[in-house]
Amino acid sequence: METDETLDGLRQELRRGVISVAVLSLLSKPQYGYSLVSILEQKGLAVEPGTLYPLLRRMEKQGLLESQWDVNQARPRKYYLLSAAGRETYDQLCHDWRSMASGLDELIGASNDQPAKPMD
Amino acid sequence: METDETLDGLRQELRRGVISVAVLSLLSKPQYGYSLVSILEQKGLAVEPGTLYPLLRRMEKQGLLESQWDVNQARPRKYYLLSAAGRETYDQLCHDWRSMASGLDELIGASNDQPAKPMD
Repeated sequence: METDETLDGLRQELRRGVISVAVLSLLSKPQYGYSLVSILEQKGLAVEPGTLYPLLRRMEKQGLLESQWDVNQARPRKYYLLSAAGRETYDQLCHDWRSMASGLDELIGASNDQPAKPMD
Repeated sequence: METDETLDGLRQELRRGVISVAVLSLLSKPQYGYSLVSILEQKGLAVEPGTLYPLLRRMEKQGLLESQWDVNQARPRKYYLLSAAGRETYDQLCHDWRSMASGLDELIGASNDQPAKPMD
């Protein structure tokens, strides 16, 4: 039970950073909230609207995103798009991501070759 | 300036989850704090002792790690090792990591094929 909570905490921690980069990666072209939810889910990165929408608002406030309402539809939709600063931040994060991911992949690969040894 | 802070925040968020999995991956065999710092740095996952040591203590408290002092050296060292629960948690996180990482890699690949389109 406690282990489940611990696992959930670590899992959330891991997802949080990945989701932010994933959202930025999708905003080279305008997307509205629900379209992001759908694409992320297809990619195995499911995120609750209650998590995504505040993240989008925060990123807009930070100047990473621009937004625009499309009111030419039955239901008005707010579209988000990377700003120039957001593009730069995204490029940096991609660079970080690649280097971290390859470091972790190496460690995980090595740990699987190395069975647990009892501590004596 | 504000963008730098924003980037740092997102970068920290991304690192936090990755570092936890990286630490667990190294503890299939006993390691002490400073040996972890060195290995992580070599893998491009540099972490401050002031971040790592509280993380190790937290993980021990959560039952993921066991520890043992080695006092047969000039300077006593505390060695950490995955517990059985820690091993299980680590295996689950590796599974999550692989699925998230491949989802994000796909998105990043696609975003690079797709130049930014102005919003009109």
